[in-house]
Amino acid sequence: MPIDLRSDTVTRPDERMTEAMAAAEVGDDVLDRDPTMRRLEHRVAELLGTEAALWVPSGTMGNLIALCLHLERGERFLAPRGAHVLTHELGSAAWLAGGMPEPLSWDAGAGRPSPWLVRSESADGGRYDALRTTLLCLENTHNAAGGTVIPPDEHAQLVATARDNGMRVHLDGARLFNASVALGVPVAALTVGVDTVQICLSKGLGAPVGSAVAGDAEFVERARRTRKMLGGGVRQGGVLAAAGLVALERTERLRTDHDNAKRLAEGLITRGWNVTPPQTNIVLASVPDVQHSLEWLEGIGVLAVPMGGKLRFVTHGDVRSTDIDEVLRRIDAVS
Amino acid sequence: MPIDLRSDTVTRPDERMTEAMAAAEVGDDVLDRDPTMRRLEHRVAELLGTEAALWVPSGTMGNLIALCLHLERGERFLAPRGAHVLTHELGSAAWLAGGMPEPLSWDAGAGRPSPWLVRSESADGGRYDALRTTLLCLENTHNAAGGTVIPPDEHAQLVATARDNGMRVHLDGARLFNASVALGVPVAALTVGVDTVQICLSKGLGAPVGSAVAGDAEFVERARRTRKMLGGGVRQGGVLAAAGLVALERTERLRTDHDNAKRLAEGLITRGWNVTPPQTNIVLASVPDVQHSLEWLEGIGVLAVPMGGKLRFVTHGDVRSTDIDEVLRRIDAVS
Amino acid sequence: MPIDLRSDTVTRPDERMTEAMAAAEVGDDVLDRDPTMRRLEHRVAELLGTEAALWVPSGTMGNLIALCLHLERGERFLAPRGAHVLTHELGSAAWLAGGMPEPLSWDAGAGRPSPWLVRSESADGGRYDALRTTLLCLENTHNAAGGTVIPPDEHAQLVATARDNGMRVHLDGARLFNASVALGVPVAALTVGVDTVQICLSKGLGAPVGSAVAGDAEFVERARRTRKMLGGGVRQGGVLAAAGLVALERTERLRTDHDNAKRLAEGLITRGWNVTPPQTNIVLASVPDVQHSLEWLEGIGVLAVPMGGKLRFVTHGDVRSTDIDEVLRRIDAVS
Amino acid sequence: MPIDLRSDTVTRPDERMTEAMAAAEVGDDVLDRDPTMRRLEHRVAELLGTEAALWVPSGTMGNLIALCLHLERGERFLAPRGAHVLTHELGSAAWLAGGMPEPLSWDAGAGRPSPWLVRSESADGGRYDALRTTLLCLENTHNAAGGTVIPPDEHAQLVATARDNGMRVHLDGARLFNASVALGVPVAALTVGVDTVQICLSKGLGAPVGSAVAGDAEFVERARRTRKMLGGGVRQGGVLAAAGLVALERTERLRTDHDNAKRLAEGLITRGWNVTPPQTNIVLASVPDVQHSLEWLEGIGVLAVPMGGKLRFVTHGDVRSTDIDEVLRRIDAVS
Repeated sequence: MPIDLRSDTVTRPDERMTEAMAAAEVGDDVLDRDPTMRRLEHRVAELLGTEAALWVPSGTMGNLIALCLHLERGERFLAPRGAHVLTHELGSAAWLAGGMPEPLSWDAGAGRPSPWLVRSESADGGRYDALRTTLLCLENTHNAAGGTVIPPDEHAQLVATARDNGMRVHLDGARLFNASVALGVPVAALTVGVDTVQICLSKGLGAPVGSAVAGDAEFVERARRTRKMLGGGVRQGGVLAAAGLVALERTERLRTDHDNAKRLAEGLITRGWNVTPPQTNIVLASVPDVQHSLEWLEGIGVLAVPMGGKLRFVTHGDVRSTDIDEVLRRIDAVS
Repeated sequence: MPIDLRSDTVTRPDERMTEAMAAAEVGDDVLDRDPTMRRLEHRVAELLGTEAALWVPSGTMGNLIALCLHLERGERFLAPRGAHVLTHELGSAAWLAGGMPEPLSWDAGAGRPSPWLVRSESADGGRYDALRTTLLCLENTHNAAGGTVIPPDEHAQLVATARDNGMRVHLDGARLFNASVALGVPVAALTVGVDTVQICLSKGLGAPVGSAVAGDAEFVERARRTRKMLGGGVRQGGVLAAAGLVALERTERLRTDHDNAKRLAEGLITRGWNVTPPQTNIVLASVPDVQHSLEWLEGIGVLAVPMGGKLRFVTHGDVRSTDIDEVLRRIDAVS
Repeated sequence: MPIDLRSDTVTRPDERMTEAMAAAEVGDDVLDRDPTMRRLEHRVAELLGTEAALWVPSGTMGNLIALCLHLERGERFLAPRGAHVLTHELGSAAWLAGGMPEPLSWDAGAGRPSPWLVRSESADGGRYDALRTTLLCLENTHNAAGGTVIPPDEHAQLVATARDNGMRVHLDGARLFNASVALGVPVAALTVGVDTVQICLSKGLGAPVGSAVAGDAEFVERARRTRKMLGGGVRQGGVLAAAGLVALERTERLRTDHDNAKRLAEGLITRGWNVTPPQTNIVLASVPDVQHSLEWLEGIGVLAVPMGGKLRFVTHGDVRSTDIDEVLRRIDAVS
Repeated sequence: MPIDLRSDTVTRPDERMTEAMAAAEVGDDVLDRDPTMRRLEHRVAELLGTEAALWVPSGTMGNLIALCLHLERGERFLAPRGAHVLTHELGSAAWLAGGMPEPLSWDAGAGRPSPWLVRSESADGGRYDALRTTLLCLENTHNAAGGTVIPPDEHAQLVATARDNGMRVHLDGARLFNASVALGVPVAALTVGVDTVQICLSKGLGAPVGSAVAGDAEFVERARRTRKMLGGGVRQGGVLAAAGLVALERTERLRTDHDNAKRLAEGLITRGWNVTPPQTNIVLASVPDVQHSLEWLEGIGVLAVPMGGKLRFVTHGDVRSTDIDEVLRRIDAVS
């Protein structure tokens, strides 16, 4: 039986979730708003400290809606190199939202651009025909950098710099609850000052389907329209929202994933692997030949994925600490 | 308790569906394909007579993906006046798919353009800078025309004409099973020759969320990519696919909806209303003042919606024949 | 030597124009604004009664910029059936401007929708997910209808109706000077109340290259940016603006074109052709087989084009009344 | 009288050009192709070694058409950091062409990415939902890097690497004739293996308006359609093409601009300025405060522009060696 560390998206809903789904009170969310959806959206807004929130089928759609509504045609947006909106959404930021992306280097640490860089990239010389930079996209935790966190003070500085230079701010918080747990701060401490934020109910929180995008009431009203246009409006969505509500009760369970990631990283380091100590639930290992290593691991029943030239392992709700021990045992057995 | 005849999209999943959802075998559909999704997609393709199929969160997304893949930038497509892709998808056909729509008049009957009209609209004079017409979108049943059907022979003529004039054909079959039941032919008899078709698992079939878009294997492979780009890729989608599989076992139940629609129409006609006898599950009534009539009906606990200047009533799985009798009784009580 | 009645776009610049072009004071219009361009743009705004104007390489670009700036993604716009923006701009209204077009029937006369129809098409039922109709595009004169004019009072009613129903108004005035001359009113009488208007300096006015799009100062400032984005910003454009300034001195010469069109139409009617009496410089003839007639005419040295299922003849600055007589003579010779 | 070194785009057409424009044989280029346009397009293709070429109003439109035709929605393209398509075309690559840009660092020298980097950025892991990299945009000379050249052998390696990794290649050759003159090779030696190339007739070559985009016959046919859609089709364009033909006879005059740039750079270096020796007609100077320096220079009658955090001076046809001496004299006078 392979141990699946490819992504926290592989988590299966547990019995409590499927029961909640079966019992959910539902309605037609396009016509009237589904009552369970309303509860979920209200709960998300409450946790994130925003006026309102909207369920979406995926984090990609949440990010896309935010970009569509923030960007006028051809405007430039900044995002840290390797951000999900740049690399894992098939170019929808350009094609659909019409935005011109500028990847920022990680001059403040893995996955983190500095406020200085944000300011420096905002200048356009003021000419009528200059490309304008109007949006900063942050990602917390930053997936491709290895699940790295942006702490509240640094977040605040980045947001203030963006605002001072005429930009709006969208936060891709697909794994924002991981950052909250790792930093020991409420999730709302990590959304201070942003215009919009997207969070995933699947991934570490374990819901089968769904994310949410949040902001002020006017944004959410417009987002509901854009969601319909993209084909993300659903009918009796309460069946999914019910799972999302269960997921939001369990954010503390991410602590276990972080412990398991640490356990894995330490085990690999002990065995001489080139691994950066993880901040959350993602472990990146540098290897000479990624494809070769992936196949070798698959051969011993350990599943990982390539990420930016490294191996990526992700811990999640279907992985126990004994699974981590078993991974290390399988590696030892063939080393 | 109001009787809700606004749309068949309001149908709530029944116990058998919620049980199937709870019991569904699931996987990560973005990474590996979810096993229940695979079964659903296979079943849809089998029923529709296509090589392959893809689950999508909504009919709007199914239509949008098809238009995106069929149309090059700026190409013109034909669709009957009032078609869902023209009027109820917030202009995504233009903005997202880049298509230039041409509404066709209903010269062959309600909701139905003639092959002659399709041919006549295909001509572009051959100049290098002429707008090119490359796609015909059909809709069976046609919602805004009152759930009207296109029979197999007429369908075949329209498809042949489109092909002879260099067009591809997409069929918006959101209610194709209604057409199949009404005509007494297998649903595959109504997809002959088309490139792609979209069907809804919600609406009359009663699944809470989901549609499918089908075509040849290459189309479906590309559609999977476009779905991801639009944000319609989901993780443990098997929970929804399980409901879809139950829905597909029950297509015969639509006969009851059609009977109820007929019962409603006859009752209204008897009472002097201006109603066209329905072909499927949609009843359109001409009234002097739509807004006034909607409010009057709401006052007596009967919900309908406006549609193209008329009142629209839709029968569905949560409406019994006794509900129809009750609707007529409430009308009598205040007339 | 063929007599070319295909379009007024074939007019060649005369000596006075080429001299003006050679003598033009020029600058870099992207950097500083070219001085002759400034003079032209000022003159256009003055004639049209707008705050400002912008030179563009073509009428298609002028219309496209207006649509891009008026339409949010997916919004619906109305235009009379056969309008240039619908049929002769390769779908750029949809692909580039993201607009969902709705062709209006000519219920008020050839090329002319009624205010009643404009109002009736504006309704969207007020639902959050309804397609919104936000723009009316007029075309005066209407090319495909045979150069038909909209008189000032009818124009005013259409504009008022659009505004009352929440729409902006763009006027495609590629041949607006023809309408002005035919109606005997200043061109500004035909732009009252519109947001934006496009006029062509080529066509009947005879400049080799160029059009202008006009509106308020804020629109023109944004239009300058969009023009740059589309690739329509030019450097020493004064060479073309100089020709445009000459063209604008000669609007009265269109009277000759109208006389010649009338002479042609009367000659053809006398000979039993099915021709509608022209209002400006376009003559449409109904024939049983357009392609056959075009070839037959080409064989006797008379060039026309197909237009909406008819033959179109256009008079212009390189056609004298004796040329019209010669056309009729050639027809007689082979009839 | 200020000496204008802001850009070579400020060059004014000389008498020989205006005479050629006045004498040009013209036609309607949209309907029939203008004869002088045909000659120009033929000549461009001949010089560049491509099958065909198309006149366009600006280099921006030439690049935009190429990107539109090379990129499918959402595909990723590579371009050296600071490339004109990334920074000076208002994001049209994203909004209009739908491409997701990736700026490449200058790891092979100023303005020049290495073949190694091109290869490394092409990898997408092969997943169905991976962003695909399908186009390399080169820029020779590279404006923002200070007019730097890519020599033929390096060009060939970059093109081969791109092709081996499944990419097409577009060359932004707005100043390709400068590269040709600086390297002492025919311009066709710098287009070997590319799919498409854009060159400007204005800038150093001195035509008032116009560029060309070239490639194989099929590309040019499609480009003509896209040009019409964008509004770049013009009527009697021969007046501009005639100037372009004169411009193409004078490519050797760029040698003077390069000599003047060298003279300026040496003069500035002698005076202690931080200036990189120029390869062509662009001189970049590093100064502590760009805005301050620009104003100081303007005060003494020397015009420059900011470029990527430096001062940019450009020599051109309206600048003589004595003007350079005068620039240095004015600097001395106030230093």
